[in-house]
Amino acid sequence: MGGMAEQAVDRASQAYRTQDLQLCQLVLEAERGINISHSEIDELATDLLAMQQPMAVDLRFILAVIKINEDLERVGDQAVNIVERVMDINTLPDAEIPADIPKMASVAVGMVRQALQAFIDGDAEIAQTVLQSDDSVDQMNRDIFVAMDKLMHDNPDVARQALDALLIARNLERVADHATNIAEDVIFWVQGADVRHHQQAFTNRQS
Amino acid sequence: MGGMAEQAVDRASQAYRTQDLQLCQLVLEAERGINISHSEIDELATDLLAMQQPMAVDLRFILAVIKINEDLERVGDQAVNIVERVMDINTLPDAEIPADIPKMASVAVGMVRQALQAFIDGDAEIAQTVLQSDDSVDQMNRDIFVAMDKLMHDNPDVARQALDALLIARNLERVADHATNIAEDVIFWVQGADVRHHQQAFTNRQS
Repeated sequence: MGGMAEQAVDRASQAYRTQDLQLCQLVLEAERGINISHSEIDELATDLLAMQQPMAVDLRFILAVIKINEDLERVGDQAVNIVERVMDINTLPDAEIPADIPKMASVAVGMVRQALQAFIDGDAEIAQTVLQSDDSVDQMNRDIFVAMDKLMHDNPDVARQALDALLIARNLERVADHATNIAEDVIFWVQGADVRHHQQAFTNRQS
Repeated sequence: MGGMAEQAVDRASQAYRTQDLQLCQLVLEAERGINISHSEIDELATDLLAMQQPMAVDLRFILAVIKINEDLERVGDQAVNIVERVMDINTLPDAEIPADIPKMASVAVGMVRQALQAFIDGDAEIAQTVLQSDDSVDQMNRDIFVAMDKLMHDNPDVARQALDALLIARNLERVADHATNIAEDVIFWVQGADVRHHQQAFTNRQS
């Protein structure tokens, strides 16, 4: 599931760079598989809770799986949103758009990959590094917003292309948010700590 | 938690209509309360799972609570995103923007309210009506996209105001998505059916 979601965003970014409509099609088709896995994993996790009645770290693990599964499904949705914009760009005249979408995509996909690695290894330290990358993605999103807003105003003939790039940047920012959620869920599972809402002190739970 | 999240979007919409910066401030301040409730509810639900080891409908109820809690927290995030755009509009010259944001907000907030009512009453039929409203919100979002895209192109002097309206419409569309998720979780809890991804046949679970 993680691999499919990560691949979807990676392909969407590649489709933006190369304007490859076949790649767009692959992302659209893969969404069905992601949705099926999402339902299956959720059902499996629920059944495990019902039948095994896990305690402490095992319970936290299954709860983390349920939440990570939701986030991965939404990463897949973002990939679909991105290729919809790529297909829109494909219908428009070529334009020079000063937005480094590939760089932003590379950081966002890297965060998803690292968050999944943290999950596979049960490694809260790797998960922490994901949290640190989120600020840089937010900054890239803001920079692209400012640049595209200016371009729309200065050159209305490419306003639509600028809007598409701005929306893709927001989709990537949400991919990074989901990677952050996944990393936080790994930390909760491994350490029993709730690090959401970036609270100063960790709330240690019973374990 | 539901009341706070619903109120946040309602106030954000009112702030858009009236350009009331004090209302924006209230939404920003309320987010802290929503985040605290989010953590508390998640912890309570996890503790209940650990200590009571609920079965069947009780287990589904607690899992639904955990997921609904996530969605409500994100509804609060959307309200914050909306008031950020309202505060941006407030710095710009007045402009006639042909986007019926208040109407779209009213439908989206109504969906959140109905989804919460379905949860309170454990009523899968009310939850079904929420699912039906989602298409009309999607259509409003598409209509506003087309109108704002045209405005940006035709009148670059109000491109920023048009962009803000377009982004608020997207935020409201996500509020409606979260209401839809909540309604689906209510149906899962009450009926033991997974209605996500709008599958034709319900997957009946063990109960």
